[in-house]
Amino acid sequence: MRVGIIGATGYGGAELLRLLNQHPKVEEIVLYSSSKEGMNIQESYPHVSGIYNKELKSIKLQSMKEEVDTVFLATPPGVSTEWSGAIAKAGCQVIDLSGDLRLQDPLVYETWYKREAAPLSLIENAVYGLPEWNRDYIKKAKIIANPGCYPTATLLGLAPLAKSEIIDVDSIIIDAKSGTSGAGRSPSAVTHYSEMNENFKIYQINTHKHVPEIEQLLNEWNNNIQTVTFQPHLVPMVRGIMATIYVKAKRQTSEEELRELYQEAYQKEHFVRVRPKGQFPATKEVYGSNYCDIGVTYDERTGRITVVSVIDNVVKGASGQAIQNFNIMNGFEEELGINNVPMYP
Amino acid sequence: MRVGIIGATGYGGAELLRLLNQHPKVEEIVLYSSSKEGMNIQESYPHVSGIYNKELKSIKLQSMKEEVDTVFLATPPGVSTEWSGAIAKAGCQVIDLSGDLRLQDPLVYETWYKREAAPLSLIENAVYGLPEWNRDYIKKAKIIANPGCYPTATLLGLAPLAKSEIIDVDSIIIDAKSGTSGAGRSPSAVTHYSEMNENFKIYQINTHKHVPEIEQLLNEWNNNIQTVTFQPHLVPMVRGIMATIYVKAKRQTSEEELRELYQEAYQKEHFVRVRPKGQFPATKEVYGSNYCDIGVTYDERTGRITVVSVIDNVVKGASGQAIQNFNIMNGFEEELGINNVPMYP
Amino acid sequence: MRVGIIGATGYGGAELLRLLNQHPKVEEIVLYSSSKEGMNIQESYPHVSGIYNKELKSIKLQSMKEEVDTVFLATPPGVSTEWSGAIAKAGCQVIDLSGDLRLQDPLVYETWYKREAAPLSLIENAVYGLPEWNRDYIKKAKIIANPGCYPTATLLGLAPLAKSEIIDVDSIIIDAKSGTSGAGRSPSAVTHYSEMNENFKIYQINTHKHVPEIEQLLNEWNNNIQTVTFQPHLVPMVRGIMATIYVKAKRQTSEEELRELYQEAYQKEHFVRVRPKGQFPATKEVYGSNYCDIGVTYDERTGRITVVSVIDNVVKGASGQAIQNFNIMNGFEEELGINNVPMYP
Amino acid sequence: MRVGIIGATGYGGAELLRLLNQHPKVEEIVLYSSSKEGMNIQESYPHVSGIYNKELKSIKLQSMKEEVDTVFLATPPGVSTEWSGAIAKAGCQVIDLSGDLRLQDPLVYETWYKREAAPLSLIENAVYGLPEWNRDYIKKAKIIANPGCYPTATLLGLAPLAKSEIIDVDSIIIDAKSGTSGAGRSPSAVTHYSEMNENFKIYQINTHKHVPEIEQLLNEWNNNIQTVTFQPHLVPMVRGIMATIYVKAKRQTSEEELRELYQEAYQKEHFVRVRPKGQFPATKEVYGSNYCDIGVTYDERTGRITVVSVIDNVVKGASGQAIQNFNIMNGFEEELGINNVPMYP
Repeated sequence: MRVGIIGATGYGGAELLRLLNQHPKVEEIVLYSSSKEGMNIQESYPHVSGIYNKELKSIKLQSMKEEVDTVFLATPPGVSTEWSGAIAKAGCQVIDLSGDLRLQDPLVYETWYKREAAPLSLIENAVYGLPEWNRDYIKKAKIIANPGCYPTATLLGLAPLAKSEIIDVDSIIIDAKSGTSGAGRSPSAVTHYSEMNENFKIYQINTHKHVPEIEQLLNEWNNNIQTVTFQPHLVPMVRGIMATIYVKAKRQTSEEELRELYQEAYQKEHFVRVRPKGQFPATKEVYGSNYCDIGVTYDERTGRITVVSVIDNVVKGASGQAIQNFNIMNGFEEELGINNVPMYP
Repeated sequence: MRVGIIGATGYGGAELLRLLNQHPKVEEIVLYSSSKEGMNIQESYPHVSGIYNKELKSIKLQSMKEEVDTVFLATPPGVSTEWSGAIAKAGCQVIDLSGDLRLQDPLVYETWYKREAAPLSLIENAVYGLPEWNRDYIKKAKIIANPGCYPTATLLGLAPLAKSEIIDVDSIIIDAKSGTSGAGRSPSAVTHYSEMNENFKIYQINTHKHVPEIEQLLNEWNNNIQTVTFQPHLVPMVRGIMATIYVKAKRQTSEEELRELYQEAYQKEHFVRVRPKGQFPATKEVYGSNYCDIGVTYDERTGRITVVSVIDNVVKGASGQAIQNFNIMNGFEEELGINNVPMYP
Repeated sequence: MRVGIIGATGYGGAELLRLLNQHPKVEEIVLYSSSKEGMNIQESYPHVSGIYNKELKSIKLQSMKEEVDTVFLATPPGVSTEWSGAIAKAGCQVIDLSGDLRLQDPLVYETWYKREAAPLSLIENAVYGLPEWNRDYIKKAKIIANPGCYPTATLLGLAPLAKSEIIDVDSIIIDAKSGTSGAGRSPSAVTHYSEMNENFKIYQINTHKHVPEIEQLLNEWNNNIQTVTFQPHLVPMVRGIMATIYVKAKRQTSEEELRELYQEAYQKEHFVRVRPKGQFPATKEVYGSNYCDIGVTYDERTGRITVVSVIDNVVKGASGQAIQNFNIMNGFEEELGINNVPMYP
Repeated sequence: MRVGIIGATGYGGAELLRLLNQHPKVEEIVLYSSSKEGMNIQESYPHVSGIYNKELKSIKLQSMKEEVDTVFLATPPGVSTEWSGAIAKAGCQVIDLSGDLRLQDPLVYETWYKREAAPLSLIENAVYGLPEWNRDYIKKAKIIANPGCYPTATLLGLAPLAKSEIIDVDSIIIDAKSGTSGAGRSPSAVTHYSEMNENFKIYQINTHKHVPEIEQLLNEWNNNIQTVTFQPHLVPMVRGIMATIYVKAKRQTSEEELRELYQEAYQKEHFVRVRPKGQFPATKEVYGSNYCDIGVTYDERTGRITVVSVIDNVVKGASGQAIQNFNIMNGFEEELGINNVPMYP
């Protein structure tokens, strides 16, 4: 396969470069840019010196299909809205890592993103790329809306419960913590080292764009679930997300019942590891890998379930999952190129 | 005043050394130890070289009153249980930074701490030293049970709501995050640098010792509150706690109503800063200081209130608050010696 | 005393706010700005909420002397060049934390700073504010050129050797490491959290502006010293500088001789702590304080002396030393307002 | 190939697990331990859950050859001394990541390591595994003494100069900085998170065990080089080493001459990247990879050369290089299993 990347100078792009380099089915990688044509990727990323000695090319729709089979968009809001339809029409597979195509209702998109939604026809053709729960649709998809980082950790953590009859559907609270790489590569006051180190921050309280994405899927799985409370935090580290999820049980349950529920849900899933009783994952235990690790427990005293779900936001929360979708779309083994053992320590 | 410190080689002790050094009413500081007698504190803490050139002395009850007026215990579990009663009887004020004397019910203590409780007579004489809500009792106290770090952040954040009629009393969830200094000075696998940096961990799920302490106070303030869900996390930083608190409103409320509630509660409190609308504190904004900063908001969509409360766990969560209690007990201005501007960045 | 700060929104300014707040001789603090007039400092720095509820005022030379006695400039290059002369003429003391007035030779300034030097008359009136070695001049100064952070650590570490006859004057190498706060508050790619954490960088190899400042003083102390090799590095931490200094002995010496040399040089200096034999300081051991801690040793095998000198770059390397100079200029005790015990951990 | 690992619960072992898992020629991995037999590796390392579900086996010499072809020892001092000879005799290849077999002179070993040296016969059979400069010997070796982390960065950085006639052989100074993983997995006060974060430390001044290893190789390359000054520092990060190397030129040279020297030396070396003029590597640019990146420059003002050499201490400084040696010994392509793109950010 020949693949193209639009947005290779961002962090999602850098991670695609890392992972696609070890993918046995990828023969060629072309880097596109709409703003930095002519720049050699090594200037932007010295860490790929001698590995990718490539210039960023301008995007030319007419020749794209001749150059590549699949295009990954690791781009800021709006770019996919503008290009994905045309690229798909040109005959390439599209895997969009941005949020442009994830929300099915344009009004919801415009409310939360504060910008114009993509054309409905484009949205309708995009398949939400959460493989563990949407694999059959992904197989036939031409355009993938790759899930957001927080939704990936949250939805994998909540799915078995959401689909069960155990929980109080109005009680879902997600307290999410992310490393700074999720904020992207543009320097800002918030992620300035001197202000972020030895600091822990909450941000975008009740207004984060990933809220409607989480609600959309939960509602699809259980139409009694309408809203969730979701608060994101910034941790002084680069990679990793932990979602600590609180749900009220609407009837008596037990650690054992919950554990069975999760094990059954994920026993065939290579990239989801349900931890044994009493063990909860830390973010570093999935560092650099495509795993989502989950712990779950029930507190009899309070009747409340706590789920802990961790991912590497740049891998399973972005580029790794994008390649997982790429593998599924093309009938490859799902683990190809993304089967890294977590890097520890 | 002449003060003694038992446990100066721990982090609570180190912080007492830092703060008491700048306290205008403290003329002498004596360091006691039951295990490291004879060691010069500079050997343990080179950062006090030339400032505290003092040896740790053994604890001698008979001479204690001649040497010091007040004794701070910054000690592991059990030490206060053993010594505080006798020290008080010897005529010294006791300020206990450990958890030994905080819980009024020995059975609850033994359930959560998995060790024998202090004698009831001792517990009954200890006043819970949360100045903002217990000042009148502290004024007359001889023995202070200085609050835990998590309870301090949590209770200051929840008090106005707990005492109001706004909230669903069964809905309280506290997602707490702490720097590693809260885990103390003993090296361990959990806080080994290579395992803690670039890592975010959850620990002691549903079993943290601070749960009953939080519940005790909330129940005292509002006897409809029975239990809370509390999950602590470790952040790759040294100092700082954030408690993100989730409460369901049982009736319609508003940002404005909540803000008024908090401003009224804390308008005369020097060390509690309620942030203006739309602003939420980060832990670094109280670094090295005795402040507790609070933000509060209401989400109409979900009917849920979110309170964000931050402290420096070593100051307001331990040694600073201990000195605040010391000031109150002795009729000094409450800010003496602990009026540091937060260190930023 | 009434003091003014120009540049309060930078890190040097923030640290002046922290330290001056606890200075017993400072009755009033006025904040000036040439670019952000009208902004309340709390907007820029929430950590001073409730402590400094002050607006930044525009700089008006005619009224300045009526408002303040001393003006601290914590400003980018060029500002002091423009204002310091006029402020001094207006009758205020000037303490300039920038590099504008440190180099006596305008040509050297222009070579290393790549910008126009300050007028010679202004430079000649500025006294280099390294109290331990320049106290007598500081006492009579009206304008202080406050030393750079790297020169402070380096010069205090080298002075006893430079003034001795022990060393090979051509052999001085300074390998310096700094936290990121030295790079200031403006976000940049270099100090973007995701690029700086878990990373160690070298920068401005052979070209750092502090080289001629170090050489100027060394040459003043020993005119056989012409050049030094100085390489600065960025450490993933916020505060702290370590200068590891390598010098060849030109004759046989010993640990004991060196130790005596240093102890004699600094025995009366409150803010310089020479460590005992075999002990070398870490940066955190002076965190938040005005201390410079020094370790020194001799390797018989190689005939080379290694000096380790650490400071908190924001305190002894900037604002703390500025206040030390302020105290000396005004005949106050040198430690006033800056006598903080290092914060540890 | 079937490989065994002794010491899989340490960091060198963990990294072997990560890298060998992706090695196309490794069919089986057996974990041995002399102290933790029976423990499942997942208990020690949850990050390999579901990947390595293996118990640690006791070391049995007689059956070893039937089980594995090559044994990696990622063990504390002394273990290799005890076992390597016998394992080799049993017919297995031995790759020793410890320092036991690196020094050819037992006296030197005993002086620096303060323990008994390995038998001379064993030492004489061990080949120093620095592939870029010792490849021909490695090809025929049965026992590899895998280089230390600091020596790897230092020697690759110095080799072209040491072998040239440009430098003053008495002038070599290496200021080295390492992440904490080099200190291993045992918790200690030095690497306790609260004491290591926001801290920069120097340690083992003039006494680090890697000094004689560096000198041994330099002397082999240029017998006029007798001693070097080497000072190691600890950086608050987990992975990465930077060696900043200072050498006096004994004659006029130039950036261009030096660059040519380095490019020529390393042009065929896959894992050494000499950076273009004016560019110096940061440690993160080789994170998780087997690269050693080098920058070099000459300062006409001082006549001094500065070389900057970075590696990931756990990969090129330990397990990655061990696998590189494994590949060479077995005639495989040198990059097999260790061709990871650096992980960034």
